[in-house]
Amino acid sequence: MSFLSVLPPECLLQPFHVPKRLMLGPGPSNVPARISAAGAQPMLGHLHAETIEIMNQIKSGIQYAFQTRNRVTLAVSGPGHAAMECAIFNSLEPGESVLIAVNGIWGERAVEIAERIGATVNTVVTSAGGYFTNEEIEQALDKYRPVVFFLTHGESSTGVCHPIDGIGDLCHKYNCLFLVDSVAALGGTPIYMDEQGIDIMYTGSQKVLNAPPGTAPISFSERACYHHTGPISSFYGLRESLAILAETGLENSWKRHKEVAEYFHKGLEEMGLKLFVQDKKARLPTVTTIVAPPGYDWREITGYIMKTFNIEISGGLGPSAGMVLRVGLMGCNSSKANVDMVLEALADALKHCHKSRV
Amino acid sequence: MSFLSVLPPECLLQPFHVPKRLMLGPGPSNVPARISAAGAQPMLGHLHAETIEIMNQIKSGIQYAFQTRNRVTLAVSGPGHAAMECAIFNSLEPGESVLIAVNGIWGERAVEIAERIGATVNTVVTSAGGYFTNEEIEQALDKYRPVVFFLTHGESSTGVCHPIDGIGDLCHKYNCLFLVDSVAALGGTPIYMDEQGIDIMYTGSQKVLNAPPGTAPISFSERACYHHTGPISSFYGLRESLAILAETGLENSWKRHKEVAEYFHKGLEEMGLKLFVQDKKARLPTVTTIVAPPGYDWREITGYIMKTFNIEISGGLGPSAGMVLRVGLMGCNSSKANVDMVLEALADALKHCHKSRV
Repeated sequence: MSFLSVLPPECLLQPFHVPKRLMLGPGPSNVPARISAAGAQPMLGHLHAETIEIMNQIKSGIQYAFQTRNRVTLAVSGPGHAAMECAIFNSLEPGESVLIAVNGIWGERAVEIAERIGATVNTVVTSAGGYFTNEEIEQALDKYRPVVFFLTHGESSTGVCHPIDGIGDLCHKYNCLFLVDSVAALGGTPIYMDEQGIDIMYTGSQKVLNAPPGTAPISFSERACYHHTGPISSFYGLRESLAILAETGLENSWKRHKEVAEYFHKGLEEMGLKLFVQDKKARLPTVTTIVAPPGYDWREITGYIMKTFNIEISGGLGPSAGMVLRVGLMGCNSSKANVDMVLEALADALKHCHKSRV
Repeated sequence: MSFLSVLPPECLLQPFHVPKRLMLGPGPSNVPARISAAGAQPMLGHLHAETIEIMNQIKSGIQYAFQTRNRVTLAVSGPGHAAMECAIFNSLEPGESVLIAVNGIWGERAVEIAERIGATVNTVVTSAGGYFTNEEIEQALDKYRPVVFFLTHGESSTGVCHPIDGIGDLCHKYNCLFLVDSVAALGGTPIYMDEQGIDIMYTGSQKVLNAPPGTAPISFSERACYHHTGPISSFYGLRESLAILAETGLENSWKRHKEVAEYFHKGLEEMGLKLFVQDKKARLPTVTTIVAPPGYDWREITGYIMKTFNIEISGGLGPSAGMVLRVGLMGCNSSKANVDMVLEALADALKHCHKSRV
């Protein structure tokens, strides 16, 4: 045991360089310098008093962003997907009944997780781009009598922002918990956890909050914890992103996302492009879905824009795969200057890409 | 729905400041500027070509650090504890038999996880500070015929570095997988995954590697994956920490940890302090356990050193709780200068703390 049989890899002996890129896909979004700088602050122990204080500040920031007074409000050490698992695993037992609203990929994903737990899974389903009326939801609650109702607030695969008003009351009328996925929407469009009767809600750090991926705000009424070394430097970044939101003001953030999205939608229509979500009220301001321009290969468009402008936009996902282009305008990326850039890039792509399919 | 009932929290409107501290506990260790700076590089998409390339570089770096050619070698998005769960969940099915060597808290933790899966759990157990002979392990393998044998390489709760030679062959003789937890040891003391017949091994990013917590290197032969937004900026840091290890050379790293630990142990004995692990060969060079000085309250000593010197050292954990002081010298923290500082701090603490219990 005295010789190394695997030698130091050549690729690690080269300097590390990451290109700068405008991240206008459905996330992760760009990270402002102030948030990256916070992540580079000195390491602390995960049980030090200062770390506990930072976690408390994060808790307050999430309570503000979520508009909740829930005591069990924290950042999960993981991506939004870990928060989804955490929410579902902590609200459902094997054999219990859950109702999942499926109007895109995140509802589908919730179905998979709930089935893995061994829950009895019932769904209501709309076509891509659609959403549910409160009447449809009440009928399904009455029929299936679930213990949990799962709804995606910002469905990033279709660009739908689901209405929330009144659903919490319906759930409680049927003695059911209201669980909301707001990964792609939170901070960019109004939601009031307590007033709207939401029992469990989570989001991601890498969307509107502009923090690096790896921490996921969640708030709920039941607890399940384990001891581990939390990703301290990621928490620093999340603390700073919540500080920016607190300084900006939640309502100002909602207003800016709405104005910038409407400015973008107008520009798209002036170019002759069509929005995938017909109903203006249901358009998610953080992720815009554009009907894939007929006759073009959407992959060529996103590839051209990445190569020529160093801007990321993306194709569809799940039910919208092949049908749409998706553009994210989240947090610091939600600006008219970025809209102008992406409109110019789209116009240029439509000129230069092959119009081969009709 | 037009008023915010939760206002922006005052604590987030203050500037963010984190104190500098010498982190000589059993982890997390200090993060060198080069690694923090890597974490602050621009955000990329988790599926971008450059991110895939960074993941490949990380894979090469882990293969070097682990001395393995395993194809399934990656960083888990989570702390070392997530890698432990990942290793156990992917190697055991409900009802299967597992043998766990318990000589400290990490073996105990493995027992809990394996029981939660519904495996048939058998253990061999030593007192705190002890380890197992290959004869004892073979007897247990023969008796219980497990499908997996779990062993902790660096038991941070007791300061024991477990011998590894020959155990892989024993496991394979009994048709059993050899699973090794090297969270507290990897990079600081020799281990050769392939040559020593280890089937599954994992470590943490925040120990000898000096990267922030939140990613955990693991290598094994079976695959289980899910799609999520990986903690990109944490991967940057891990890439850079592996680059430092590749530049330093694994053998130089092992040698430095050994020399610095021996220098520390000599200094402790000259002060009249006793090492908890009697057998010199079994002393973990990354985490030193010192018999708690008789007559003192260990909490007062660690508190005094934190307050007076801004140095973290810690008390015992699990089977060593109340019995030891633990000092970590990991990665960039493994230096004679740090040893001199912590020896001075210990001497000062013994002078100033109450000697109230005999």
